[in-house]
Amino acid sequence: MELIDGNEIASAIIEELTERVAEFDKGKPCVAFVRVGEDPASVSYVKKKERTAAKIGIESKLLVFPESISQEALMEEIYQLNDTPDIHGILVQAPLPDHIDAREVFNHVSPAKDVDGFNAVNLGKLCQEDDSAFASCTPAGIVELIKRKGIQTEGKHVVVLGRSLIVGKPAGMLFLRKGSPGNATITYCHSRTPDLKKHTLSADILIAAIGKPHFVTEDMVGSGTTVIDVGINRIPDKTKKSGYRLVGDVDFETVAPKTSFITPVPGGVGPMTVAMLMANTLKAFENSIRSA
Amino acid sequence: MELIDGNEIASAIIEELTERVAEFDKGKPCVAFVRVGEDPASVSYVKKKERTAAKIGIESKLLVFPESISQEALMEEIYQLNDTPDIHGILVQAPLPDHIDAREVFNHVSPAKDVDGFNAVNLGKLCQEDDSAFASCTPAGIVELIKRKGIQTEGKHVVVLGRSLIVGKPAGMLFLRKGSPGNATITYCHSRTPDLKKHTLSADILIAAIGKPHFVTEDMVGSGTTVIDVGINRIPDKTKKSGYRLVGDVDFETVAPKTSFITPVPGGVGPMTVAMLMANTLKAFENSIRSA
Repeated sequence: MELIDGNEIASAIIEELTERVAEFDKGKPCVAFVRVGEDPASVSYVKKKERTAAKIGIESKLLVFPESISQEALMEEIYQLNDTPDIHGILVQAPLPDHIDAREVFNHVSPAKDVDGFNAVNLGKLCQEDDSAFASCTPAGIVELIKRKGIQTEGKHVVVLGRSLIVGKPAGMLFLRKGSPGNATITYCHSRTPDLKKHTLSADILIAAIGKPHFVTEDMVGSGTTVIDVGINRIPDKTKKSGYRLVGDVDFETVAPKTSFITPVPGGVGPMTVAMLMANTLKAFENSIRSA
Repeated sequence: MELIDGNEIASAIIEELTERVAEFDKGKPCVAFVRVGEDPASVSYVKKKERTAAKIGIESKLLVFPESISQEALMEEIYQLNDTPDIHGILVQAPLPDHIDAREVFNHVSPAKDVDGFNAVNLGKLCQEDDSAFASCTPAGIVELIKRKGIQTEGKHVVVLGRSLIVGKPAGMLFLRKGSPGNATITYCHSRTPDLKKHTLSADILIAAIGKPHFVTEDMVGSGTTVIDVGINRIPDKTKKSGYRLVGDVDFETVAPKTSFITPVPGGVGPMTVAMLMANTLKAFENSIRSA
């Protein structure tokens, strides 16, 4: 069993991005973070993204709106960001309040600034295997982990547990495309899949993105599998100052010994998501220079 | 074994559409068919589409361009169609000549007129499970066959053989979505999948869209499987006046007896593709009235 150290790989990417940003003498990339409400996890994610941007030399602008903001008012803010030339990327932190149609919001971020990759245009282009698309950050981070660890995907069976728009679906599409990483056989399983074990046991690479703590247990994983744990679940823990600890979708302790590679939680996919957001922002900036 | 009669189901849909079109007293839907070159199969497909449109009461306009048309000139024609208010749907007949970037052409058809569903926006919306999207016609036709035959997909294993943008990928996404038909477990196999048989044998519903005549043989299909054959392959046949006959991707004679349901070729998925194109055109027309 070998641990896939997401922090280490993300650091390497951040270093590469820092060097690339330093090469621009005129203008710097700038990303806008849009946060609605004060959800503690969202506050902490956005802070982490701001810190990482600063480290790389990417400017950022934080816009915080009250939980009560209307759909129209939020859309108006997005339109303004779309129209601001020196904002190159826009990230709207999910989740949004229930009264907001999140899909509508994501679909109105300009595709050229959609560094989160949630816009229909970027999602469609990803299905079209168009490299100009912004791939959503978590799936892109998973691909990068697999690539940098030299794990082969050609002809392998990638089983994706979860069919979310943000992780599951695009992750499968990325490993399905012609190329490397890619050319894998893909199975999408989810909450309505009976006999889940049959599918997960046949995986060469298992991507767990179902959002349930310790859902993947030892009996569901075959020997030698690569396991990518996307889950970030908070469970109560009185021994922690915060009162909780983070665990993945995988029961790491029992599953890890059977795997060939596995990502820990925290320190696996999480830091990669932030790194890929920065990579997308730099790409948006470079595109804006090219088209100027 | 029960044959899924695509002609019969397509006829029922065409009848329903004819009734709906007749209800409009002002204005009729109009679809533009764009054909490049004189490929005999394309000529015949477009003719079939023109005839079906006429039968329903949908107007059509045929634009034929020489094989030598440039990308720019073809795009210019598309832009003009996009800007013509009384054209509600645009179909660019594939395949396009090699010097044309087909993806670029499809992506510049206005999403609101993209009745073929090949545009990135519609593909992305389909992944987003947005019913306002135009689903590409062949996958939409497959869904309709399954639905009208009352074949359950919830919790079933749908194995898609082929990862094309036009059939394989969207077909899988449609059966993956939350809803009915939907909620299936999806496996995408393709030319780079080793041990194909292992996957196809585990299918409850097998969608063959790999474009190889008689590729799916009896040993690859489990007893009681529903088989949807998307292949339309021309193979030489001296007994035919045309010198060829059409066969599917499935070796029908040996496979059919093992199945619970199977589509024939011709007369299975083919007529459904045309029917769904007409359904999409009517939807585009109705949308244009609503937004007028």
